[in-house]
Amino acid sequence: MSADGKIVRTISDAMNTDLPEVRALTGAESRVYNFSAGPSMMPLDVLLDVQTEMLNHKKSGMSVMEMSHRSKEFVQIAQEAEKDMRDLLKIPDDYKVIFLQGGATLQFSCVPFNMFGGPLGSTGDYLVTGQWGEKAMQEANKYGKGVAACNTKATKFTTIPKPSEWKHTEGAALCHYTANETVNGVEFHSTPDVKAPLVADMSSNFLSKDIEVAKHACIYAGLQKNLGPAGCVAAIMSPEYASGKHEQKLCPTYCSWKIAAQNDSMYNTPPCFTWYIMAEVLKYTKKIGGVAHWNELSDKKAGMIYRTIDESNGFYTAPVAKDARSRMNVPFTIMGDDPALTKKFLEDAKKVQLFTLAGHRSVGGIRASLYNGMPLKGVETLNDFMKSFMDENRK
Amino acid sequence: MSADGKIVRTISDAMNTDLPEVRALTGAESRVYNFSAGPSMMPLDVLLDVQTEMLNHKKSGMSVMEMSHRSKEFVQIAQEAEKDMRDLLKIPDDYKVIFLQGGATLQFSCVPFNMFGGPLGSTGDYLVTGQWGEKAMQEANKYGKGVAACNTKATKFTTIPKPSEWKHTEGAALCHYTANETVNGVEFHSTPDVKAPLVADMSSNFLSKDIEVAKHACIYAGLQKNLGPAGCVAAIMSPEYASGKHEQKLCPTYCSWKIAAQNDSMYNTPPCFTWYIMAEVLKYTKKIGGVAHWNELSDKKAGMIYRTIDESNGFYTAPVAKDARSRMNVPFTIMGDDPALTKKFLEDAKKVQLFTLAGHRSVGGIRASLYNGMPLKGVETLNDFMKSFMDENRK
Repeated sequence: MSADGKIVRTISDAMNTDLPEVRALTGAESRVYNFSAGPSMMPLDVLLDVQTEMLNHKKSGMSVMEMSHRSKEFVQIAQEAEKDMRDLLKIPDDYKVIFLQGGATLQFSCVPFNMFGGPLGSTGDYLVTGQWGEKAMQEANKYGKGVAACNTKATKFTTIPKPSEWKHTEGAALCHYTANETVNGVEFHSTPDVKAPLVADMSSNFLSKDIEVAKHACIYAGLQKNLGPAGCVAAIMSPEYASGKHEQKLCPTYCSWKIAAQNDSMYNTPPCFTWYIMAEVLKYTKKIGGVAHWNELSDKKAGMIYRTIDESNGFYTAPVAKDARSRMNVPFTIMGDDPALTKKFLEDAKKVQLFTLAGHRSVGGIRASLYNGMPLKGVETLNDFMKSFMDENRK
Repeated sequence: MSADGKIVRTISDAMNTDLPEVRALTGAESRVYNFSAGPSMMPLDVLLDVQTEMLNHKKSGMSVMEMSHRSKEFVQIAQEAEKDMRDLLKIPDDYKVIFLQGGATLQFSCVPFNMFGGPLGSTGDYLVTGQWGEKAMQEANKYGKGVAACNTKATKFTTIPKPSEWKHTEGAALCHYTANETVNGVEFHSTPDVKAPLVADMSSNFLSKDIEVAKHACIYAGLQKNLGPAGCVAAIMSPEYASGKHEQKLCPTYCSWKIAAQNDSMYNTPPCFTWYIMAEVLKYTKKIGGVAHWNELSDKKAGMIYRTIDESNGFYTAPVAKDARSRMNVPFTIMGDDPALTKKFLEDAKKVQLFTLAGHRSVGGIRASLYNGMPLKGVETLNDFMKSFMDENRK
């Protein structure tokens, strides 16, 4: 029992006492707001649960990271996670959901491996709206042909061309897009309407809004933005592409969507602990109102920062076209990308617990990533800071 | 302060009080002995440290799983881990150490991808002494030719043939062996002496003893036995094989040892949290006496169980030839593989906190995996249980 009369049996109990010294046991005091583009902030409740069960998961006497992946305890965690993901994203029953390692980067290879070997041939169209889409296309060239149906590199990846301007290959095996480009902060706000089987890299906006799953042949997403630690990718595919019908002969066994689907993602040992944390995030998402909750929160958070930028009379500038602005990553520059002011901004921000706001090394400036785990309070703190920094530093 | 007068500031402090209810906060009470073949038991001290720092790593205000992989905090963790691994295993300075995802299974493909494209050509010899070696060989056939220099399938993978019986291919690009086969419990107790560039899958005995690194072209090992959670593979390779000189053109970018080495394993986002836990295990290993400690402990643990089997007058039988017995995985049968007794053994074992002792689904019987994280006390408890079970059930 702690001094305020509450019984402290677990770490979560410790968090709920009125005694700071008991709460401090958890480490939850003095956390910062971390605007990293990924890996990124996790919901505090999820971290507390993981901490509580670190040595002994649900009275199993083991940490989840110690469990056999074939144990009934872990299989239950894995199955619940898949079910929760299906419920939350309304994934059609006949679509497969698999979990793989290697990040989106390995999926850049898996896409041609699993889609270029069938009757549609080996040319893929790519809507290139950022560095990730470009890398995906380049990888396709190793196993067939990756063609840019559009490429906004000339405008420094700050726009999404109109669909009427996309140049499609007749009979392409796929059309790939990057739903959100983290480096430049460019996001598709509707599902591209194309003839070829549609493939989406949703690594950085997955679980932030509803998805039209059935319009896609395949969707893949690394977990490390909205769903958990780095080290696991969720892939959702239509039965056609889970069947192996379009698989290339040289597809590595590990990269085969068919093998993964047939083995419930346990052909070999999966990244169990990462999978479990994702399961916790999905459970938490259900509890607080589902994807609709994150969607609304994203509107509020991104809206607040873009408004401050737009109303700053040029003190802050967001380089991305308004209709392509990302809700997940908000890049901006200060006074025409002034290096001294940018440095001062980053330093002063830390004094009010705002961390990891530097832009990607390839573009510079500031980037605030506002993934699901970033609480509204963190964005409000950033917003207040941006306003006072502007007042103090406008010449 | 807890009632016994000790100041409880962290979870580790909580563990060190005399009060069970405070210790119980951590979940460390009522843990079981888990003999899983992997993922497997972790040292308690490591789990406690990870738990303590779950919400706030070294006053950074973040969990390690929330940190950018390019942050100075994480880069320091990553670099220290590599340095500790180099120190502990005496890895030559010119050898590269990389960390990848996808398990040994993806490395089965990476081996031909990175070794079949050079002047040595695309035939690899495989010493097949178990299911994993067989899978590695089969994968090589996709990208060249995998040839069995020996194959003990006919003896149900219970032996390692004499080197004089191995049939080598003249000018082979590699010779691959599985240092320890987890399913059948077969372990090489010395480094194979062969002409071709030597490749070892050390997934299940890595960090249990010294390695003759310089005799190898490449060593790879999944972490989930002796080093941490599932989801990361360490690969150590000679400069020749980190240079890309032997890389096949169709090697996926993610699978390129050269790309991984050039980018300090951060070409894309690595499995940071898993890497961090490995770092903690390596630090702990240094503290308790290095690889020599684990080596000695393994001798003691495995020796105890094999002795009980050998002295059981046929009540217990270990099917593997004595000179090929694994220290990591001890498979045995009871009374000629009696199904009723096996079931009873597994049930009764649980009553004394001994879990996950069932043999692999492909072989049945009992398997006790004795990885580094399994404390001596756990093995002593198993040993006592085996003796009393034998006394009670011998007909």
